[in-house]
Amino acid sequence: MFMQNLPTKVRINEVATRDGFQSEAIFIPTDKKIEIINRLSLLGLNKIEVTSFVSPKAIPNLRDAEEVMNSITRNPNVTYVTLVPNEKGAERALATNADEINLVMSVSESHNLSNIRMTCDQSLAQFKRICTLMEGSNTRINASLATSFGCPFEGLIAPERVIDVIKQYLDIGIQSISIADTTGMASPRQVYELCDQVRNIFPTLDVTLHLHNTRGMGLTNALAGLSAGITQLDASLGGIGGCPFAPGATGNICTEDLVHMLESIDLDTGVDLPTLLDMARELPELLTHDISGQVAKAGLRTETRPLSQSVIDLKARNEKH
Amino acid sequence: MFMQNLPTKVRINEVATRDGFQSEAIFIPTDKKIEIINRLSLLGLNKIEVTSFVSPKAIPNLRDAEEVMNSITRNPNVTYVTLVPNEKGAERALATNADEINLVMSVSESHNLSNIRMTCDQSLAQFKRICTLMEGSNTRINASLATSFGCPFEGLIAPERVIDVIKQYLDIGIQSISIADTTGMASPRQVYELCDQVRNIFPTLDVTLHLHNTRGMGLTNALAGLSAGITQLDASLGGIGGCPFAPGATGNICTEDLVHMLESIDLDTGVDLPTLLDMARELPELLTHDISGQVAKAGLRTETRPLSQSVIDLKARNEKH
Repeated sequence: MFMQNLPTKVRINEVATRDGFQSEAIFIPTDKKIEIINRLSLLGLNKIEVTSFVSPKAIPNLRDAEEVMNSITRNPNVTYVTLVPNEKGAERALATNADEINLVMSVSESHNLSNIRMTCDQSLAQFKRICTLMEGSNTRINASLATSFGCPFEGLIAPERVIDVIKQYLDIGIQSISIADTTGMASPRQVYELCDQVRNIFPTLDVTLHLHNTRGMGLTNALAGLSAGITQLDASLGGIGGCPFAPGATGNICTEDLVHMLESIDLDTGVDLPTLLDMARELPELLTHDISGQVAKAGLRTETRPLSQSVIDLKARNEKH
Repeated sequence: MFMQNLPTKVRINEVATRDGFQSEAIFIPTDKKIEIINRLSLLGLNKIEVTSFVSPKAIPNLRDAEEVMNSITRNPNVTYVTLVPNEKGAERALATNADEINLVMSVSESHNLSNIRMTCDQSLAQFKRICTLMEGSNTRINASLATSFGCPFEGLIAPERVIDVIKQYLDIGIQSISIADTTGMASPRQVYELCDQVRNIFPTLDVTLHLHNTRGMGLTNALAGLSAGITQLDASLGGIGGCPFAPGATGNICTEDLVHMLESIDLDTGVDLPTLLDMARELPELLTHDISGQVAKAGLRTETRPLSQSVIDLKARNEKH
């Protein structure tokens, strides 16, 4: 049967202010970022990936990472995450008392070299140094496995490679992982099968699924992952970010579309969908471009509109006969 | 388990030249329509909904319905369908020797009144007259159940209502049906449950599922329908048509995105995806607007691109050490 092993509760992690804002052409004002994170903090989200401690030269839009982290009003029920590309970033994350850092390596050697100019061995050695550096702090360490399903240079990725990297992560002290479909190449079957394997091999591991909607399969893949026992999904308000290939192409799966779909099949996300929709509808003006999220345009599936007067008259006329 | 009862073969019906073109602002030249249908005819599609025999005043873009039907080169493996709104339309369809006509009624009384100014009883009486009129011809009769999952005026629709209408259709001699999510309100659970019921109650009935991607759930709903035993899906090249709510909102599920997803899980559609993609990529110029289809933008998930020279050098340098 379809969807028979779904969890009853799904945790949603919001990545728009990091994965979304980092690729925006115009600078999002710092006070606007803070306002957005503060509003997101009240909506029942599990984690918020606030910003990235990268070089301001590499990603100018996140040059205010410290100010944002130090100015937001934290909700104790939310885990505030920052992306960290190196030891310097880890030190900055510690200094701002991030609840969690997120490290990223591509399981594809070619993509890792292209993306961060390091071999996987070099990335892992760096992760190990960062784990040592973080020892004794209250900051948790999550690590992402980019290109877990496919690499734009190497093609589809074998599940065995992902399992190997997870083992390497656990060996050096990583506490939780994110399996990422970085360029939207995953099929629902791949997602189900890899997630199922991961759940079987690492039954107690805290796993997030990070999906992109590049080829329209994002929400289907989310459902495939949930059917395989995943209970935590990354998503981005409005569907912004995630390196779209072309104008109009989409990146990250869209938070409000995901929550809307999960609610439609009676899965509990604990997320305040109406307010999320309000926030998504403000994005086109802020970013000066359209967003890929669809529920923000079409409205909730349960929303009805009134009949026109001419139809009401027609109905009355027919009822008389 | 996820996707455990999927069929091995899925038939795809193309509706772009009717459901897509009917709502385009600019007139698609007749010879262009004929060329597109002739090319689509060679791609392994099951049916092509060519045009609609409506009043040219109501839908100016389809005012060339006869010329298109009489000029296309028919492939005997394809069923050429025309939409028919009334007896006059049925006569026109017969005169052009359509393989099949498609009748449409909304299962929601309010939507039927709004859309075609008739009560459901009036629509059924008309269908009956059309069935009588078609007797003895070689033209098959399909009837669609619009708003089978939800109505924008009445809200979500109970499956019992759909089952009742199917019975009414069969009583008057309809040969096959299409269950339509006209405004994209269906959830994957609704689709699974209704399709499962329909398969159980009418096991030999030829059923098509006609889905819209209005709220991003179109492909997920397709998979839900297939899991419940449906083997035939409508879709539209480029995802055009289907009354989008707003610019950028999507209507019909996109043929190439659907075929791409089904191939990704090893389902056989028999459809030539590369040529379909070529055709989809020509649509923005023809229609003078972007399309919602995503694979046409992002490329096949199995397509790889070459590494940049700097990464090749970096790789070589690392291998030396």
